[in-house]
Amino acid sequence: MYKALEQTLDDLHNDKAVRGVIFRSALDRDIYTAGNDINALFAPRTTLARYREYLVISNRFLAKLLSSPLVTVAAIKGACPAGGCVLALCCDYRIMKSGSIGLNEVALAIPVPAYWARLMSSAIGEGEAYRMCTLARQIPASRALQIGLIDEIHEDVDAQARRFMNETLKLPDVGRIATKMSFRQSLAQEMGDEKRLAKEADKSWDKLSSKETVAILTAVMAKLSKKGKRKADGKL
Amino acid sequence: MYKALEQTLDDLHNDKAVRGVIFRSALDRDIYTAGNDINALFAPRTTLARYREYLVISNRFLAKLLSSPLVTVAAIKGACPAGGCVLALCCDYRIMKSGSIGLNEVALAIPVPAYWARLMSSAIGEGEAYRMCTLARQIPASRALQIGLIDEIHEDVDAQARRFMNETLKLPDVGRIATKMSFRQSLAQEMGDEKRLAKEADKSWDKLSSKETVAILTAVMAKLSKKGKRKADGKL
Amino acid sequence: MYKALEQTLDDLHNDKAVRGVIFRSALDRDIYTAGNDINALFAPRTTLARYREYLVISNRFLAKLLSSPLVTVAAIKGACPAGGCVLALCCDYRIMKSGSIGLNEVALAIPVPAYWARLMSSAIGEGEAYRMCTLARQIPASRALQIGLIDEIHEDVDAQARRFMNETLKLPDVGRIATKMSFRQSLAQEMGDEKRLAKEADKSWDKLSSKETVAILTAVMAKLSKKGKRKADGKL
Repeated sequence: MYKALEQTLDDLHNDKAVRGVIFRSALDRDIYTAGNDINALFAPRTTLARYREYLVISNRFLAKLLSSPLVTVAAIKGACPAGGCVLALCCDYRIMKSGSIGLNEVALAIPVPAYWARLMSSAIGEGEAYRMCTLARQIPASRALQIGLIDEIHEDVDAQARRFMNETLKLPDVGRIATKMSFRQSLAQEMGDEKRLAKEADKSWDKLSSKETVAILTAVMAKLSKKGKRKADGKL
Repeated sequence: MYKALEQTLDDLHNDKAVRGVIFRSALDRDIYTAGNDINALFAPRTTLARYREYLVISNRFLAKLLSSPLVTVAAIKGACPAGGCVLALCCDYRIMKSGSIGLNEVALAIPVPAYWARLMSSAIGEGEAYRMCTLARQIPASRALQIGLIDEIHEDVDAQARRFMNETLKLPDVGRIATKMSFRQSLAQEMGDEKRLAKEADKSWDKLSSKETVAILTAVMAKLSKKGKRKADGKL
Repeated sequence: MYKALEQTLDDLHNDKAVRGVIFRSALDRDIYTAGNDINALFAPRTTLARYREYLVISNRFLAKLLSSPLVTVAAIKGACPAGGCVLALCCDYRIMKSGSIGLNEVALAIPVPAYWARLMSSAIGEGEAYRMCTLARQIPASRALQIGLIDEIHEDVDAQARRFMNETLKLPDVGRIATKMSFRQSLAQEMGDEKRLAKEADKSWDKLSSKETVAILTAVMAKLSKKGKRKADGKL
């Protein structure tokens, strides 16, 4: 999925006619994303090599999104945990309908990646981000608006995202892009650096493959599997 | 104007009897400043050498103001775009009556200078500053108070600024100044560094002299000139 | 006192059964702490060597607390100036009943230590922290909640701190601790560095032993002494 996202973003960047992109959910239910696939983080079902590839590609995509010259909008129609939340944080603007949002890794015995925590700090300040991340909080849209984690609440996020996009595209690109870069370019470069990511993967793997984390994820996946095939698969 | 501002500030710093300064508008109308003179940024009416001098002197003054040992107050009685906004951000305290405030450069195809964006981030957090700067937002005093871009709304900003000044001068200078420096000194040093500013000037000039920026500024200046001589000249 | 605090924290860290700690006041009155002992900062009653020892030990303890793997809660039942405020800022969570809180050093002609100011910036943003520190503001619990300096107001802070602790300890430690470190470890390391602290002590001593500071502290201590022995001794 992250390979496809990165390829799509590269294609949009290469198309001079494209000036903006909206990330929306095609699900019927009010879910934005269920987050990353737990299987990619569950040591017994993956390998260090596979995990490293997953971590590098996903964060390389997120870093490209963070400093994309496009106007980037997240149209969040519902639940937005972990992987969905960080994708939204890499956009310029976030519109939400309902559900809750947050980086809830800690609840599953997984550390919040350091750069994801920094992205949340950038958006809402370090104090709020510290509480949210260390306490695995997922907060409702109304609270997210209050602390600036999202920019707007709207019943029809897709229509509102298009309105915001049209309004923003009236601004000339040249100053907007340079100003965006002054905020985000150096952070995106650090975050997407492949050497750094490979090191982070090795360090995280020690924790993911620890007895404690494996035991907790095993319990979580058993619970999710009980909930039945009709519900979303275990995602983070 | 920036030369005069810098000279005045230097004089105040050399006068041991002076412990504070209030920046107010002498206009009858409710305008704080109309911002910088667009002519200084409009490539066809200036030169790289002239632009570089303008950029160095204005930011050297702003950096001195940022780390001034004086108590510095902005008494903002009305409209406070771009250059006025950054002057206010370099003060210790901002009292506003009415009008709107913001760094609106992007609307004119001009990047917000990186250090001006950082000053806004320091005041209101990076998330809010990102939206404000990339979307060229100017917000009313009531909203500015809510997000901490100003400290107070008051009908008589001059009287209130004097009250705040008198109250603050009851504090001993020694701890206040050292504490102010621990917040601002290193940022002010970077911001006012002349080598850095000369480089920034060269880089910005590429953008200011681009066809796109010149075309947009030409249109803006034509519009402003139509509005008649009675209104403020094109300022940013 | 700081030696005892550091020793206690070291003991808790060495006891594998301990996962959290609550810092509460044993006073009957609604006072959290009266802050540091002014005598430790009053040059005529101490020496540079003694002051340096005080500064190193107190900040080494605070740095250990900041990056403690334990869940750390401040149950603040009342007045929480200076030294009490920074202890609370080094905790994970702050619950307050009444009284006011702030880093009020500037009112006594003493600079707010740079790392204490940074801790406040981390908690509430640089803009708010700048105003609070340079203006020596102590704010009531209601305002502290609004700006995020505390997390909750509660009539029974001890009971509420235990509830929060029990709730938080349901989270697995492994992800929570790693996430906490990604926020706080490097700041704690800088803050607790003994070479840096010895330098800071020498620099601060110049100010503490200046005529101006000694004169102001003399006046403050005379005032406090007049208030009688029944009130708290001069503390900061």
